[in-house]
Amino acid sequence: MRLSEEQRLDWLRLIRSDNVGPRTFRDLVNYYGGARAALEALPGLARRGGASGPAHICSAEEAAAELKAARARGVALVALGEPDYPARLQMIDDPPPLLAVRGQLPILARPLVAIVGSRNASAAGAKFAERLARGLGEAGFAIVSGLARGIDAAAHRASLAKGTVAVLAGGHDRVYPAEHADLLEAMLAEGAAVSEMPLTWEPRARDFPRRNRLISGLSLGVVIVEAARRSGSLITARLAGEQGREVFAVPGSPLDPRAEGTNGLLKQGAILVTEAADVIAVLEPILGRDIELPAREPEREAAGAPDTEPGEDERSRIVGLLGPTPTSIDDLVRLSQTSPAIVRTVLLELEIAGRLERHGGGLVSLL
Amino acid sequence: MRLSEEQRLDWLRLIRSDNVGPRTFRDLVNYYGGARAALEALPGLARRGGASGPAHICSAEEAAAELKAARARGVALVALGEPDYPARLQMIDDPPPLLAVRGQLPILARPLVAIVGSRNASAAGAKFAERLARGLGEAGFAIVSGLARGIDAAAHRASLAKGTVAVLAGGHDRVYPAEHADLLEAMLAEGAAVSEMPLTWEPRARDFPRRNRLISGLSLGVVIVEAARRSGSLITARLAGEQGREVFAVPGSPLDPRAEGTNGLLKQGAILVTEAADVIAVLEPILGRDIELPAREPEREAAGAPDTEPGEDERSRIVGLLGPTPTSIDDLVRLSQTSPAIVRTVLLELEIAGRLERHGGGLVSLL
Repeated sequence: MRLSEEQRLDWLRLIRSDNVGPRTFRDLVNYYGGARAALEALPGLARRGGASGPAHICSAEEAAAELKAARARGVALVALGEPDYPARLQMIDDPPPLLAVRGQLPILARPLVAIVGSRNASAAGAKFAERLARGLGEAGFAIVSGLARGIDAAAHRASLAKGTVAVLAGGHDRVYPAEHADLLEAMLAEGAAVSEMPLTWEPRARDFPRRNRLISGLSLGVVIVEAARRSGSLITARLAGEQGREVFAVPGSPLDPRAEGTNGLLKQGAILVTEAADVIAVLEPILGRDIELPAREPEREAAGAPDTEPGEDERSRIVGLLGPTPTSIDDLVRLSQTSPAIVRTVLLELEIAGRLERHGGGLVSLL
Repeated sequence: MRLSEEQRLDWLRLIRSDNVGPRTFRDLVNYYGGARAALEALPGLARRGGASGPAHICSAEEAAAELKAARARGVALVALGEPDYPARLQMIDDPPPLLAVRGQLPILARPLVAIVGSRNASAAGAKFAERLARGLGEAGFAIVSGLARGIDAAAHRASLAKGTVAVLAGGHDRVYPAEHADLLEAMLAEGAAVSEMPLTWEPRARDFPRRNRLISGLSLGVVIVEAARRSGSLITARLAGEQGREVFAVPGSPLDPRAEGTNGLLKQGAILVTEAADVIAVLEPILGRDIELPAREPEREAAGAPDTEPGEDERSRIVGLLGPTPTSIDDLVRLSQTSPAIVRTVLLELEIAGRLERHGGGLVSLL
């Protein structure tokens, strides 16, 4: 499937509207049968959810301007479900509805492996990242990383010729760190840069963990080269595990603080890597396997009215059950004595109103 | 059980005779009902096995002299099955019938952990070995090692106060390396030195792998701290695995050749160690368990004549089936169409004659 120009505009409007993230986007489109109908429903949802003020809904003009600017910059906005959309990324829980790609789109169809690690890498760590990236490149893998200083940059640099993908936490016009702008440009000849944010989005601290799910989501596996305790690379490793991707870690001396994170991952069952062959041996068998995509509802032509509209009584019962402590959606259904569909709708309203936080494992809490 | 002085002398004579190793010792004593009867049978066995020349049988005088010299040196000769014999060492395939112990015998009854590694250790490796030895000592473990330069010496030194055991490849009067004679003496106040060789035995290259089985055999587990590819520590790790002991390895950078061996062990399933707690967590549950000793035939009072005497025809059929290629004893029984007892006897004859080599897994070949 390919979106029409009009649909792509609607998709962009919906994902750029306040309180709409990738999961809510999917729920809304599934619920209302399409992005256009969802956009029309947003104000009502926000009101019923008890929004404290008016939330921004991205206008057609704003979205059209972003599409135009992206094209001018050579950035393709690839939609979930389109042929160019990276197949493995579709399998994660929260794939971006639109992926902004600069450079060589076809690289995203190649087998990808992520190499990530400390920003303040040791010389040995950077050298090993380069060696590993070269080895994996020669075996036909393209290397995904986060363009950070240290391990990330070493991995990108060593795979410029064979192909490498940078996943950005900000927009394509706000490359971080700025000193790697030239490295990024050099990557585009054989590789690509990917972002889910608007072109001019300045990356904030919380955008990096969010970005990390794309690094692992694009990849068959993630290799953590050096990582201190509680570092961002460990978040990527955790996300990779949750996404069912292989987690690899490079061992180091127990006296080296930069190896604490990777040794910890190895204790938790990560696969030990001392050479590219260790990664290839695990990933090659996976390459042959078909990617199983989760069943997705197609974008329906006409948006039907939702089948289930919660009554005022049901809504207040469900909201009454919620608080700052994460609660399971199953419990909400059981305790509110309503249907799963009613609970889902009320949660969607609260989310659009900016009052709901979703946690892992089907848990939600009020903000 | 405790041996009488006369029995101890016979045991020493038997194990010090040519072509009698720990396994043959056990077979002979089981077969003839005691060491004395086995000694009397040796010349006949050697003749029937086709010995090329006269093999040395240790005389009563020689054995008495060794016992006397050992006592003068403060070396106790503890026999397999006696209360002071280390319980876990009895569980291995080839425990020494007599263990020569200097220092504190009771330390061998404490929970023991081996720490071994490269002779040319890095400063970091030696430092980590010390830290680990101290941590395990504080948790109540005594440290076993091989008195070698590098990791071994660091582990011994750091556990002088809490107790440490050196297992020697040569005799107690031939400490190797000589530069560690003072370290060894310092160990005896709280620890011990152990050898299965005669007091004045000069260690040869092949005595070190043989010694390594005692390092692992005494211990609940073996920690390999640094080890290059194809190093002696890897032999200890393999033996530990074969003996059912826990194998631990300390990770290191893939760029450090001294970590090649340990990283390789980790790939094969060794338990990753970055601190003493990693070892303690695995070994503490084992401490509570009873040690299962293999059933052993007691030393019988009167030696009976063996029940099964192979005929000349049977003997030549079995010898005819043997050659330089290792063959399984089961196959010998099947192909020779004799009984397992007959095959065992013929193999014992060949062994005493110095013509048989035993391999792992019940395989034998002619020398």
